[in-house]
Amino acid sequence: MVLTRLIDAPADKLFRCWTEPELLVKWFVPAPWSVARAEVDLRPGGRCLVVMRSPEGQEMPNDGVYLEVVPNRRLVFTDAYRAGWIPSEKPFMTAIVSFEPEGSGTRYTAIARHWNAQDRKTHEDMGFHEGWGICASQMEALAKTL
Amino acid sequence: MVLTRLIDAPADKLFRCWTEPELLVKWFVPAPWSVARAEVDLRPGGRCLVVMRSPEGQEMPNDGVYLEVVPNRRLVFTDAYRAGWIPSEKPFMTAIVSFEPEGSGTRYTAIARHWNAQDRKTHEDMGFHEGWGICASQMEALAKTL
Repeated sequence: MVLTRLIDAPADKLFRCWTEPELLVKWFVPAPWSVARAEVDLRPGGRCLVVMRSPEGQEMPNDGVYLEVVPNRRLVFTDAYRAGWIPSEKPFMTAIVSFEPEGSGTRYTAIARHWNAQDRKTHEDMGFHEGWGICASQMEALAKTL
Repeated sequence: MVLTRLIDAPADKLFRCWTEPELLVKWFVPAPWSVARAEVDLRPGGRCLVVMRSPEGQEMPNDGVYLEVVPNRRLVFTDAYRAGWIPSEKPFMTAIVSFEPEGSGTRYTAIARHWNAQDRKTHEDMGFHEGWGICASQMEALAKTL
């Protein structure tokens, strides 16, 4: 599944939104959900954690690792591992996020890949397209304030 | 599952045995099996391919990617992805191989991790300990000629 969008902000600011925990918590989930906390250890095998919080206050951790880090251009991460290359209970997805300068803005592309068709459908039913789209708008608004 | 062994050769030569295709083909499978060819793209997400050949001439590819590369010290790779972070049909294992200088030799450690107990057992029944042990001896003999 792919979300792509031309965003009116430079690539390095979008990369900051993705990799600085204090920024990540401000846009990563669609309101009225929020982010309770985030951890970013920006290297292959380093922890990538976002704890989401429901409007009722229930916390749901998204825990994983970075697979590839290209400053200001590209991030790859997955929930198939915990930090230190520990296989997770249920590998679900791999995300590839890229930031390519285009005109005065940035071509933002987020790809989600799965190990089987059922997980892909589950993710689609969870509202991948709408959810990531709303988040992209929230990220764009935040990047413009940086 | 873990194999560890003190090897009478320096870490950089063992690292070469693991990462130079023309060396890899000489030791990576227990005789009378052999390696038909190997491909090494030594970076996170780069291809890690070893095509094994049975005594009868049947070829079996071990295809995957590197997850982490620390020159002369550490390699992490998995079959959970094909090159370019494409999820594979059946994620089976992750290997962590390390080379730590110890005395005049090297502490060689190979760890195999799996996503579930059944895959771990399958790997054990395939002869992980004996197979990797034989290969370590073949690698040591090769490293001494470098």
